[in-house]
Amino acid sequence: MISNGPRRDVRLEGFSSRSSFDDALGWIDGHSQPLNAEEVPVAAAAGRILARTFLAPADQPPTDTAEMDGYALRSAETIGAGGYNPLPFSIQQDPRQLNPASALLICSGAPMPRGADAIASFDLIRPGAGAIEVIESVTRGAGMNFKGQEAQAGAALIDSSRPLRSADLGLIASFGIATVAVIRRPRVRLIIAGCKFRFDSNLSDANGPMLRALIARDGGLIEPETDQFAGLSAQPGTPEHLPQSTLSEDSAQLVQAALAGLIAKPGADLILVCGLTGTGPDDVAPLALDAAGSLDVHGIALHPGGSAGLGRVGETPVILLPGSPLHCLCAYDLLAGRLIRRLGGRASRLPYAVRQAVVGRKIVSSIGNFELVQVRLVSGEVVPLGSAGSGGLAAAAHAAGFVLIPAPLEGYRPGTPVSVYSYDEVDDLEGKGL
Amino acid sequence: MISNGPRRDVRLEGFSSRSSFDDALGWIDGHSQPLNAEEVPVAAAAGRILARTFLAPADQPPTDTAEMDGYALRSAETIGAGGYNPLPFSIQQDPRQLNPASALLICSGAPMPRGADAIASFDLIRPGAGAIEVIESVTRGAGMNFKGQEAQAGAALIDSSRPLRSADLGLIASFGIATVAVIRRPRVRLIIAGCKFRFDSNLSDANGPMLRALIARDGGLIEPETDQFAGLSAQPGTPEHLPQSTLSEDSAQLVQAALAGLIAKPGADLILVCGLTGTGPDDVAPLALDAAGSLDVHGIALHPGGSAGLGRVGETPVILLPGSPLHCLCAYDLLAGRLIRRLGGRASRLPYAVRQAVVGRKIVSSIGNFELVQVRLVSGEVVPLGSAGSGGLAAAAHAAGFVLIPAPLEGYRPGTPVSVYSYDEVDDLEGKGL
Repeated sequence: MISNGPRRDVRLEGFSSRSSFDDALGWIDGHSQPLNAEEVPVAAAAGRILARTFLAPADQPPTDTAEMDGYALRSAETIGAGGYNPLPFSIQQDPRQLNPASALLICSGAPMPRGADAIASFDLIRPGAGAIEVIESVTRGAGMNFKGQEAQAGAALIDSSRPLRSADLGLIASFGIATVAVIRRPRVRLIIAGCKFRFDSNLSDANGPMLRALIARDGGLIEPETDQFAGLSAQPGTPEHLPQSTLSEDSAQLVQAALAGLIAKPGADLILVCGLTGTGPDDVAPLALDAAGSLDVHGIALHPGGSAGLGRVGETPVILLPGSPLHCLCAYDLLAGRLIRRLGGRASRLPYAVRQAVVGRKIVSSIGNFELVQVRLVSGEVVPLGSAGSGGLAAAAHAAGFVLIPAPLEGYRPGTPVSVYSYDEVDDLEGKGL
Repeated sequence: MISNGPRRDVRLEGFSSRSSFDDALGWIDGHSQPLNAEEVPVAAAAGRILARTFLAPADQPPTDTAEMDGYALRSAETIGAGGYNPLPFSIQQDPRQLNPASALLICSGAPMPRGADAIASFDLIRPGAGAIEVIESVTRGAGMNFKGQEAQAGAALIDSSRPLRSADLGLIASFGIATVAVIRRPRVRLIIAGCKFRFDSNLSDANGPMLRALIARDGGLIEPETDQFAGLSAQPGTPEHLPQSTLSEDSAQLVQAALAGLIAKPGADLILVCGLTGTGPDDVAPLALDAAGSLDVHGIALHPGGSAGLGRVGETPVILLPGSPLHCLCAYDLLAGRLIRRLGGRASRLPYAVRQAVVGRKIVSSIGNFELVQVRLVSGEVVPLGSAGSGGLAAAAHAAGFVLIPAPLEGYRPGTPVSVYSYDEVDDLEGKGL
């Protein structure tokens, strides 16, 4: 796909060529085999992916079982019962075997006595002394489940095509199973290599809190010791806090060497380096990755997020994310998040609800770039908040979601139906839900 | 709404009348004022609800700021620049104030020098010794953000109408803010009072793991010490493990008293009691709630889940959930989950994506009950998995989601458009998403 790799050093020169977004996705998908399995307690498995299809280990229910409170009896003995033809049944105490013309008081969940095949609820009987009268005929199977009626032993109940739901945990636990084999969560090393606050701008790091939440959303486990600025970016007021124009090539090389060391350390399933990906004199993240392992892609025809990079150290994938927060968000969502989801056995697709809506105001995009444009919904129509990448995280906060524009298009005209990705995990655009 | 409260003891008699589902929802909404606020670290606030609208505490960016690597310059001085008319600019070192006909090498995120109003990227210049030539005119504002361009001080950025997104955390953190005021998570006491395994059926508790995951999904915090069987249900093999027909009224009263004690203990924002809600001899949860506080509703025209109850101990709402797992799931989702979400400041609506689809095969419902029917989607059409409440959690595992049928209807005919609630949090029924 990429023959000789990208140009090694784009600093002060710019990207002479960029990989297509499709090629970048191809790289992601080629470096994201699901991890191995681990056993976790059933109660802690919500949202996890089964390592293999869950087969019913036994019939459910394991025996004929009451699903209702009432009197267990033989349905055939109730034929013809009615308000003017009440049929008498003796109340028996033995819960094991039903006698003829008898009924057993039973609670929902209890095993049926042998011979019983239905339950009469309390509104279908008249109580008496040691006996009841049934005043309506009862259908075979009413108020009960036969052995294996919900699930037969060996039946495929839950597969690995979706995260485990709350009800799945109940189903698994109902068989007396305490732990379940799920795909291991990817260990993510998060290195905040550079951020805006390394300069005098008074802006603080936005990417760390944002990326931590995104990685958790996608099922990644962050290595605690590297969830830091990694000592590469100086705090304002410290000696290393230099205006960018005084950054020497010597100090850039020191940063590069430190970063290469952090990348090369073993133990992670995936390494994210945030910041220092661009064309400025201090943008040494690609050089550090090239030194520690291999830089396979740097510069992607993607906006925002085009200075992202992809590579490996040993077999471990490394993704370089831009430091500018909206670019970081986009490159994370479209590239890094996909890799984390795939390593964890999840579906590749973006974890946003998608629905079709019609463009209400022209959405502009530059031909040649795959672009993400934040949108609002006005009377159900899609309206851009600006051009791709504009407005920063404040625009993202005002957006309902985004649309994606393939590289060959120059945007969407009003009236075009498009897929809208909703930033809110649960949405109900029609407003018709309970 | 409910004048004299429900009948106190429905055991061995059945529900002579039931509250409507709408009345039950009204009770929920009348007992679920959002809790007070607490400060939490920004990085831990994903999914939480702001206690008040987040206003930009300062302009963002706080000063004119580079959004691109390149050379900061005066846009007016580039007018007329072209490949055949390169315009020379001296490279200056002082990052504070731009000299005439000069340019400053700048990195994305750095403050602009005074006087500069644009950035020329490296592909728009030709480098030289101590100088550059600009070969294309640059628009004012290109590659930079003016002070306050993304957000002006005081602007409303995030309101409390939705859970905080990952990008919101980045936005808040970018102002240097470390903690944020959010609605406190409701403390939920979960009492598993009865479950199928109190009998000889070999079925284990499904509700505990399921409810724990559901409560976490809705933002509740489970009281650890009561997330247990509460000593009420005996393990198989212990002396208390009695066949139901030998359950004496004495032992039922012991269970009732123990349960009332657990309900009355202070400290929770909401109490859920699971099991012992029906009409069997051991179904003492409603009596226990009546003894500890007040039983306002018992028996709801809802299926599955109709034996649910609602009440209070002091000001604390108490919800009684049926022990049969699918009934428990339904009553939780439609009643208890709504209460937890509202206490935590979240939207009332069900946390499932909702979309419109057309019924492909008749969905049957009984008039008078609000019913939940699990469905599959076959070629985009809605197909019921059975009648309401059938098939247990195994059916729920096979379902794509469910439809809700108001009490006055007897179901939906093929061709009817209905709202489908998807069990999978993120869905893309059209399959058109990335």
